Amino acid sequence: PYTKLSSDNLDNGFVQPPPLRVRLICELVGTCLFIFFGAGCATKTDNLLTVSAAHALVTVWLVYVFGPVSGGHFNAGATIAFAFDGKMKIIEVFGYLIAQAAGALLSGALLLALYGTGTTLGTPGLQPKVTVMHGFAIEFLCTIVLSFVICFTTAYNKHKEAAFPIGLVVFSSFLLGADRDGAALNPWRWLGPAVASGTYHSEAWIYAVGPIGGFLVGYILFRLYKWSWNFNRNTQFLQV
Amino acid sequence: PYTKLSSDNLDNGFVQPPPLRVRLICELVGTCLFIFFGAGCATKTDNLLTVSAAHALVTVWLVYVFGPVSGGHFNAGATIAFAFDGKMKIIEVFGYLIAQAAGALLSGALLLALYGTGTTLGTPGLQPKVTVMHGFAIEFLCTIVLSFVICFTTAYNKHKEAAFPIGLVVFSSFLLGADRDGAALNPWRWLGPAVASGTYHSEAWIYAVGPIGGFLVGYILFRLYKWSWNFNRNTQFLQV
Amino acid sequence: PYTKLSSDNLDNGFVQPPPLRVRLICELVGTCLFIFFGAGCATKTDNLLTVSAAHALVTVWLVYVFGPVSGGHFNAGATIAFAFDGKMKIIEVFGYLIAQAAGALLSGALLLALYGTGTTLGTPGLQPKVTVMHGFAIEFLCTIVLSFVICFTTAYNKHKEAAFPIGLVVFSSFLLGADRDGAALNPWRWLGPAVASGTYHSEAWIYAVGPIGGFLVGYILFRLYKWSWNFNRNTQFLQV
Amino acid sequence: PYTKLSSDNLDNGFVQPPPLRVRLICELVGTCLFIFFGAGCATKTDNLLTVSAAHALVTVWLVYVFGPVSGGHFNAGATIAFAFDGKMKIIEVFGYLIAQAAGALLSGALLLALYGTGTTLGTPGLQPKVTVMHGFAIEFLCTIVLSFVICFTTAYNKHKEAAFPIGLVVFSSFLLGADRDGAALNPWRWLGPAVASGTYHSEAWIYAVGPIGGFLVGYILFRLYKWSWNFNRNTQFLQV
Repeated sequence: PYTKLSSDNLDNGFVQPPPLRVRLICELVGTCLFIFFGAGCATKTDNLLTVSAAHALVTVWLVYVFGPVSGGHFNAGATIAFAFDGKMKIIEVFGYLIAQAAGALLSGALLLALYGTGTTLGTPGLQPKVTVMHGFAIEFLCTIVLSFVICFTTAYNKHKEAAFPIGLVVFSSFLLGADRDGAALNPWRWLGPAVASGTYHSEAWIYAVGPIGGFLVGYILFRLYKWSWNFNRNTQFLQV
Repeated sequence: PYTKLSSDNLDNGFVQPPPLRVRLICELVGTCLFIFFGAGCATKTDNLLTVSAAHALVTVWLVYVFGPVSGGHFNAGATIAFAFDGKMKIIEVFGYLIAQAAGALLSGALLLALYGTGTTLGTPGLQPKVTVMHGFAIEFLCTIVLSFVICFTTAYNKHKEAAFPIGLVVFSSFLLGADRDGAALNPWRWLGPAVASGTYHSEAWIYAVGPIGGFLVGYILFRLYKWSWNFNRNTQFLQV
Repeated sequence: PYTKLSSDNLDNGFVQPPPLRVRLICELVGTCLFIFFGAGCATKTDNLLTVSAAHALVTVWLVYVFGPVSGGHFNAGATIAFAFDGKMKIIEVFGYLIAQAAGALLSGALLLALYGTGTTLGTPGLQPKVTVMHGFAIEFLCTIVLSFVICFTTAYNKHKEAAFPIGLVVFSSFLLGADRDGAALNPWRWLGPAVASGTYHSEAWIYAVGPIGGFLVGYILFRLYKWSWNFNRNTQFLQV
Repeated sequence: PYTKLSSDNLDNGFVQPPPLRVRLICELVGTCLFIFFGAGCATKTDNLLTVSAAHALVTVWLVYVFGPVSGGHFNAGATIAFAFDGKMKIIEVFGYLIAQAAGALLSGALLLALYGTGTTLGTPGLQPKVTVMHGFAIEFLCTIVLSFVICFTTAYNKHKEAAFPIGLVVFSSFLLGADRDGAALNPWRWLGPAVASGTYHSEAWIYAVGPIGGFLVGYILFRLYKWSWNFNRNTQFLQV
């Protein structure tokens, strides 16, 4: 999930930008499905490749399908970073966050119905020998990369084209972190299963602070990257 | 499998829509191959990633190859949902269903010849601790998503482009369900191996009712989604 | 490997069709690399997904890179089927077959240098409980599908676009057969490792007769498919 | 990583070629991320498919994102081969190499922070029964193929299109070598983890000589390939 919202990217033959209500539906459904298929697989298996594939594949098709409509955030970090960009109104920012939270809670309920109690429903958690700082570093570093790549690819590509590289970054990140800190990369990915299964650990703040901080830093790095292009005015971006 | 049939999508340089006999051949062959490669892999292994990949990969290339001709249903659920849409004639609907059923039975015969008796030939079935309602929920929920994504992607893309995200939804769904209820998502996926291997369980109705119901609900949700766009006439779809 | 040779498909900005010597280089190198990476992985592991991925991935990039030049056969079955089509001269057919055989023997020598004696170097062979007829059926059926899909996709797409679905058919076929009869799908895939490792079994004819027969039948089925389109002249292909 | 730098390939809507400072940033960041995600996965697991996927996936998205800016070398072998081509200035060659080395050392530091001491941090090394010559052959042969494919694909395609086949060659190469000699294919892939973990073996020269030699030979083979096209002037390349 998590691509940049831009009124310029009117893929899919729309004559006007999508209305807010439609975008909120997409954010709610997309966040729900990301957690449903991701955590739903992580509930059953701890095979690193399988769990990473599950999160990456759902990311690709969600961004492909919903990206052209809502921007495909599905992530509080992405929404806050783009709010920072100044292209979203306050009402939009809060709408996105509330829709995403509702989607996360809905997915938790679905997972609870499907797997019952007695499991963490794929709630991310630190594995043995992984310290809180290690877990925070994984969340923070991977979402910096994810945020930078989302800014980069959606600046020059349509969402449908960006879906594949963005999904691959998610794949790489989960291969790095899924068997270490559970690799949320997304506060909602933690929230949904955690609330539904009643799994709370004192270190759970890393799944909120890490991704939101990482998305902001990634966004700032992308601004710096663009600034370095135009530094001496010899070169200019055609777009962005 | 399972993309939307539309006479607008004349990919592949056709000057006229394909004749019905050609489309029925594609549905028969496609349904047969989907089950042959999917169940043929599930007969041998219960590795979650391997079985899920087998069903997803065959979906991608079948929709890519046959989608532009027949719409690439290969699924009673898809055909019934599109019949509901009013774009298929009665003769087409029955032709599609009969061709698909014939393909399913043919694939069952091929699998029986290849693996012999003494195996279920990959017939989907409930795993221990998975209740009938859990199995039904997996079939129902995953096909709602599949149906919605098929409607969504084929409304705005050529079949060749839609083949990849549709295959990924199948991948996600099998990662969720393949080791729980066997994840048919398709009545024929159950029928072919079940008839050939003589595997009947009382709960087998979930593999017919779940996918057909899910496809109908997914189709209705897509209509609602489109209706919500045009609700107050400020925004319009260019296509669909 | 194995896409259709056509002077119409002048991808890659060529102003004239490639000269025969260049095409023979591509066939030799491509056949060598297909076996080198495919059998080189099968020598080490019998994990079904890993071995299948190894053969599929190399197919995709070989067809992508060399397909626009030589047609990307890399397979005696493909060359004989296209010779049947009448579009190749006798000298081309023999040149292709000799180049492919040389590539296969070269890859066997490379594998022998890399792994030494005491292994079959990934030579395909029947697993326990798999009869000769089962093995033949896998080779024959999978290459029928492969041949049909190659004809189908290269008739309507550039080689670069066809590379992905063709590679996926190879993936599906190996998921079906790699742990049953070793899944050559290609006489050279058997020849190279077999000669280098001195592995000969009496049933090895299935790896020659199966793929060559399958490619011919797949080609004939595609002709029948096209004939069924144009049967009553109401519909016509724009291309092919 | 490792695609060809060409001022002709101005993807991404740039009105001028990127300034050197921006390209150096991309090389530093890209080399760092390739090693971070590749070696970061190899530190934890020796599953052949998982490790190979980790290196291939990060290659695809790095070339997709940074390829249009810096050419996406991320590899001393690629830079030296392209320097040989005469299209890079001396200052560019040294800049690229220094930026890549800095990225490699940075990734090593990140991995050390994440995994601590007591591990090789995924430093490539010879497995039991694999001789130094076997290891050198794997590095040398795979980078010949990689270099040839990079020259081939970037000569006729945009970097975004070339990213996928290039990543697949990396995938094939790691499936061949990751469980034999660790498959660096890149001097920096060895340097970063080796320095950070203090892992030095006498045979480590193969990870520098193999890839650099392989890239040069692959580049020369591509020049020979092009020369064979134009040998008798009947056929010409439109491009390159």
